[in-house]
Amino acid sequence: MEAVSTNRAFGGVQGVYRHASSATGTDMTFSVYVPPHAEGAKLPVVWYLSGLTCTHANVTEKGEFRAACAELGLIFVAPDTSPRGESVPDDPAGAYDFGLGAGFYVDASEEPYAANYRMWSYVTDELPALIAEHFPADMARQSIMGHSMGGHGALTIGLSCPDRFKAVSAFAPIVAPGRVPWGEKALTGYLGTDRSGWRKHDAVALIEDGARVPALLVDQGGADQFLADQLKPELLEQACADAGIDLTLRIQPGYDHSYYFISTFMADHLRWHAVRLG
Amino acid sequence: MEAVSTNRAFGGVQGVYRHASSATGTDMTFSVYVPPHAEGAKLPVVWYLSGLTCTHANVTEKGEFRAACAELGLIFVAPDTSPRGESVPDDPAGAYDFGLGAGFYVDASEEPYAANYRMWSYVTDELPALIAEHFPADMARQSIMGHSMGGHGALTIGLSCPDRFKAVSAFAPIVAPGRVPWGEKALTGYLGTDRSGWRKHDAVALIEDGARVPALLVDQGGADQFLADQLKPELLEQACADAGIDLTLRIQPGYDHSYYFISTFMADHLRWHAVRLG
Repeated sequence: MEAVSTNRAFGGVQGVYRHASSATGTDMTFSVYVPPHAEGAKLPVVWYLSGLTCTHANVTEKGEFRAACAELGLIFVAPDTSPRGESVPDDPAGAYDFGLGAGFYVDASEEPYAANYRMWSYVTDELPALIAEHFPADMARQSIMGHSMGGHGALTIGLSCPDRFKAVSAFAPIVAPGRVPWGEKALTGYLGTDRSGWRKHDAVALIEDGARVPALLVDQGGADQFLADQLKPELLEQACADAGIDLTLRIQPGYDHSYYFISTFMADHLRWHAVRLG
Repeated sequence: MEAVSTNRAFGGVQGVYRHASSATGTDMTFSVYVPPHAEGAKLPVVWYLSGLTCTHANVTEKGEFRAACAELGLIFVAPDTSPRGESVPDDPAGAYDFGLGAGFYVDASEEPYAANYRMWSYVTDELPALIAEHFPADMARQSIMGHSMGGHGALTIGLSCPDRFKAVSAFAPIVAPGRVPWGEKALTGYLGTDRSGWRKHDAVALIEDGARVPALLVDQGGADQFLADQLKPELLEQACADAGIDLTLRIQPGYDHSYYFISTFMADHLRWHAVRLG
């Protein structure tokens, strides 16, 4: 693992790191903020999964998470959203919503994506091991959040690993990729046309199939251009109501899909996580 | 004046605007954050001048000022750092420290820069009139801050207009451009070789020549790569000591010249301004 950059910020260190990933077969870049802490202390870890077109850099530069992480003593990890490199197959038409920058946090089974597009394994197995090895992380205290496609990732991973993540939240998540255009395109491309195989990568379907977490926090901009066609928080609301999951869904009037929205509510989410991380 | 974008953030609106500037003879773009406020209220205005290579966008995306501005009820205005456009002459060698992105907050007298490089007039006259006209601004309560080249701008403008600005602060400012390579290049290029004409654009010289403000706040990263050669805060410290200006100069160990440094101390500066803005 190589440090691309380290900058002091809010008393801690914002780092960007690169490593050769065995999961994706490519170099992968990610960012980690380590807040000020006592020598030898182990700190809880918050995972942040980003949305379509993003790298680690968007939230690192625009997410406004460091003040709260410094105050609350949280490590903040931001992976990339796909494998990258000249040898990595992209969307055939170069679209923004599939391929590079759009890994959808699945392990692809379809060709030509199966070799590199293994973001589920990368985010749930390989990168946690690296974080545990190189940072003062208490891996018994992890939580996960994400935005849009990364909200989908946070919900599906959080629901699939309820013993690992003490808190799960999302900003404007894709809650039911099996029922919206972004998700249908991505899951078809990565996993094939058999929709039964999609259910473990669809938060609403996971809940319908019995996955449980104690509580979820979701903020959704009321003026988000993707709200009606791609995000559909009402599907998550119904699934949680049916399953008895304590969902806090806040429709924030006037807010859009951007980091201006995310940064506004970031500290709220981190405080919610910190309570559950102990 | 045309709105390029408006996004809800921290209960207010982050806007980016474009207008045809008579000062520079070009279109100019700037950003304004208006915090949540009561209908009809007039709010104090904080000016933020950016550093070399920046546009309005750097601080708007990375400055982390909105939470504090929303809490304190401050309008935050971020102008560009130079005129721009195909007809605007740049540094002959395309260097980053002169010409486009490097207006140094002066009105140029030298050719070919004199027609467009009029950032002093733009920031002190034309843009304030536009802000007063289009935003809920109390122009009797203004303050100014900036970073690096923009710290130079904030100090020189604040010292030159002590009745207008109730607070003046800076992050890693160029305090004595007449005595450092960045400043010598820029002032020669824009103002010519007669150094006596530089003094009103040099904070330390202005103080030596009698300019006064009640107090200054300066944060400077101790690990800033430009500290020794370009920034020289000790020159400001000496000038303020000799003049009886209450300077708070904080050398922040480990911090560099980046927005990771600026964003860490932004809220501190805004609180310091808010006290003085009443």
